[in-house]
Amino acid sequence: MRQQLKLLLALAAMGAFGAAQGQSSVTVFGSIDLNFTYSKAGHASTKAMDQGGYLLPSRLGFRGMEDLGGGLAAGFWLETAVLPDTGVTQGGFGRRSTVSLMTKDLGELRLGRDYTPTFWNVSSFSPFGTVGVGGSSNIVEGWPLGLGRARTQARASNSAGYFLPRGLGGLYGQFMFAAAEGVQGAGYRGGRLGYESGPLNVAAAYGQTAVGVDDYRTVTVGGSYDFGVVKAYANHLRHRLGRERQTNALIGASVPVGAGQIRVSFARSERSGPGPGTGGTARQFAIGYAHNLSKRTTLYSAYSRINNRGNAAYVVADSSPAGVAGRRSSGLQLGVNHAF
Amino acid sequence: MRQQLKLLLALAAMGAFGAAQGQSSVTVFGSIDLNFTYSKAGHASTKAMDQGGYLLPSRLGFRGMEDLGGGLAAGFWLETAVLPDTGVTQGGFGRRSTVSLMTKDLGELRLGRDYTPTFWNVSSFSPFGTVGVGGSSNIVEGWPLGLGRARTQARASNSAGYFLPRGLGGLYGQFMFAAAEGVQGAGYRGGRLGYESGPLNVAAAYGQTAVGVDDYRTVTVGGSYDFGVVKAYANHLRHRLGRERQTNALIGASVPVGAGQIRVSFARSERSGPGPGTGGTARQFAIGYAHNLSKRTTLYSAYSRINNRGNAAYVVADSSPAGVAGRRSSGLQLGVNHAF
Amino acid sequence: MRQQLKLLLALAAMGAFGAAQGQSSVTVFGSIDLNFTYSKAGHASTKAMDQGGYLLPSRLGFRGMEDLGGGLAAGFWLETAVLPDTGVTQGGFGRRSTVSLMTKDLGELRLGRDYTPTFWNVSSFSPFGTVGVGGSSNIVEGWPLGLGRARTQARASNSAGYFLPRGLGGLYGQFMFAAAEGVQGAGYRGGRLGYESGPLNVAAAYGQTAVGVDDYRTVTVGGSYDFGVVKAYANHLRHRLGRERQTNALIGASVPVGAGQIRVSFARSERSGPGPGTGGTARQFAIGYAHNLSKRTTLYSAYSRINNRGNAAYVVADSSPAGVAGRRSSGLQLGVNHAF
Repeated sequence: MRQQLKLLLALAAMGAFGAAQGQSSVTVFGSIDLNFTYSKAGHASTKAMDQGGYLLPSRLGFRGMEDLGGGLAAGFWLETAVLPDTGVTQGGFGRRSTVSLMTKDLGELRLGRDYTPTFWNVSSFSPFGTVGVGGSSNIVEGWPLGLGRARTQARASNSAGYFLPRGLGGLYGQFMFAAAEGVQGAGYRGGRLGYESGPLNVAAAYGQTAVGVDDYRTVTVGGSYDFGVVKAYANHLRHRLGRERQTNALIGASVPVGAGQIRVSFARSERSGPGPGTGGTARQFAIGYAHNLSKRTTLYSAYSRINNRGNAAYVVADSSPAGVAGRRSSGLQLGVNHAF
Repeated sequence: MRQQLKLLLALAAMGAFGAAQGQSSVTVFGSIDLNFTYSKAGHASTKAMDQGGYLLPSRLGFRGMEDLGGGLAAGFWLETAVLPDTGVTQGGFGRRSTVSLMTKDLGELRLGRDYTPTFWNVSSFSPFGTVGVGGSSNIVEGWPLGLGRARTQARASNSAGYFLPRGLGGLYGQFMFAAAEGVQGAGYRGGRLGYESGPLNVAAAYGQTAVGVDDYRTVTVGGSYDFGVVKAYANHLRHRLGRERQTNALIGASVPVGAGQIRVSFARSERSGPGPGTGGTARQFAIGYAHNLSKRTTLYSAYSRINNRGNAAYVVADSSPAGVAGRRSSGLQLGVNHAF
Repeated sequence: MRQQLKLLLALAAMGAFGAAQGQSSVTVFGSIDLNFTYSKAGHASTKAMDQGGYLLPSRLGFRGMEDLGGGLAAGFWLETAVLPDTGVTQGGFGRRSTVSLMTKDLGELRLGRDYTPTFWNVSSFSPFGTVGVGGSSNIVEGWPLGLGRARTQARASNSAGYFLPRGLGGLYGQFMFAAAEGVQGAGYRGGRLGYESGPLNVAAAYGQTAVGVDDYRTVTVGGSYDFGVVKAYANHLRHRLGRERQTNALIGASVPVGAGQIRVSFARSERSGPGPGTGGTARQFAIGYAHNLSKRTTLYSAYSRINNRGNAAYVVADSSPAGVAGRRSSGLQLGVNHAF
């Protein structure tokens, strides 16, 4: 054994395997989430295998941290989207690709492609997150890009972000500046401040993106409170580009039941603007039960219904039939989520 | 050291690295297989570096299992095709992307993109598998997609599969239903039943895929028997789409010789149908020697010759010159396969 | 615990997770490098987040080695380019995808896509490597492909390489043959011989690639000497295709200062040829300071200026404005490199 080790070291010294490499501690992580979705839009219906119905879409990532001494640490994060129903991957490490420097006292500086501060409320203060038939993003116009040619509703490339340290008495925060670098609607500046203490978590965020001569602006305020027998959620989102605007509101709850949770949410959106097809309201009601087989593996079910009015034509899932203005969409989803 | 750990934990608690993650045990696996291939088709010849000549194509994957307690387990599998001669990767995790729930007594439920039941006989009951100049698939029309617009000869997307548990006295089986989801020739339903006991392994499979108004249907029966001094293989495959059909038969053997095996196979295909260019027969003879440097690393050689008749125009390798109807193709391959 | 292990083994035996796999020791490695670059070309200027400014571009890889006994070892290497500013990945494992067999006494045989022997001098004998605003490749025409339709300045696909063993009294060497396989300018044959002893490292390389009726030929000679208080670098590169040619020369130095290095280089290129726009010279001056937070994490800064003359139109960075013939380009870069 010692002999073998010596050989490998000798071969490594040969340069056979390139530059010497310090000890590495890369974590490979991700989740595979697949479900059966039956959905309707207007008079049409589809049955499909869909993915990403429980809290997060399917993904594969690589991340690590290094202690640099003196209270300083560095880290990286690369994460790709996976569609396991077909095996397709999307957009390289477009979910997140960052490098960070951080200290316990000063917070974290993070560079690369990352979530925008205005993303987090829509995701955190919703019992279904942004995904699945009950996802809070289903009636948010343009998700995950934004109104018009904006691209920054969920993520921004070429960004520099700063995160407040912990230890500020429950205060937390994220601030981001992202350069457009010649891509219309890709720049961003914004921030989020929140307060978390025991059962309470509240946060507000503001962000803006230049799109031509206009600014795409997002304001969002929300929170959650864990009463123990029930956790309540509420969020308000207003985003606009020029005279086009949408206002979204959501309330929801999750109730622990044995090894699972019952989740329910009600959301509403109202959209107005100068263009044809922009006026309309939508109401989404969703209820589901998720059963945790372990901390990593969950069986879930959800039913959701969107009542569209006016020009609104939202649907409950990617695999739904095309939305029809003013017509209802509904869907039932049964799936499994396995994190690793 | 303890101090450093505390710092990292404190930083992780800061949320610097996102959601908390349970302990993970992801296995990174795969193989790199490269070879030199000299091949001819009609009067043309090529010399090329080719890949995937020994049992499996080159690939990189990520997989893991989780014990859920009470006899239940969950697992995932993501596997991408790699062409290491040029570095190109293909189709995301298109080789396989699945999530599974399983118990020792009830078997395995597997969702995602996976091999079809009708794939396995062609691969298992061939001394060369389906790859390299001697591969059983060289004279199987349409491989790995199928006849006409069928896509399911080897794999299917959007599939739900069930695998019988072990402990049924040697009986094993796989059953699959895959939804087409709007892609012509992508749906599938089929199954495979086999029996393995000591040296004997036999299996039969049936599968069908709707293609327009027709069904693409595959029936395959085969087996292997390990006599110790020689392992014998035989397989029969019949697939058809409307009035187009092909019948394939293969017999082969592998003979352990020291740390290696001599492998030999003889296969025959006969194709008929209404369209121009569909009538023809082909005979493939292949012989090779593979030398195992370890369980993971193998040097291999193979020679193969395909005698085409009528409209048959099969070739021995991807890097061969284009096939010529009724003309012979042959090839010699020397390579290395390294699994990790 | 033992029970759980048994269950997993039983499930694995079920074939639930495919072919049995020997113990694996795959290393996941790479680096994320992001910086802020302010650059000018002629009268235009840009500010951008750019990547890969310190020694190596951002990348993610998988590699491993296996001791085969008897002094023989096998290994593999898969490495992809990552652009973490946007998350985009490029060209599969196009940075390197190889399998190797090697012994301590006989050296290494390496197959696949790899760096050409003529690449290494330009990278090794430069204080900035080939990357960032100070990179030696900024004024090398056609980098990383070569003059005209040549593709082999930095890497070649379908290659067989041989590396001399260590223990030849400081002599080292790499020889490569790569097949074009129908791609214009993709074939390669060449070699590199060097000598390293204590502070001294010198090497010369020659390579050629058929492009139509001409050969693309590269000759390069260089070295470095580590005086302790300063490490000096020099390299000379001449490459030509038919009557088009370019000659490059570089001298540089790195000076250890505490936990960092001051790096400085001066380079010159002269290009001539029959076509319009080929005549011109360029001079590049670069200076920078890199501060090592650890062996894996570095903060770096660099300033570089290229004085173009005649038709030369080189720029200091990918994110620079388009080069203008005969006009200066300059840039300032501040960044972080984190290897894992």
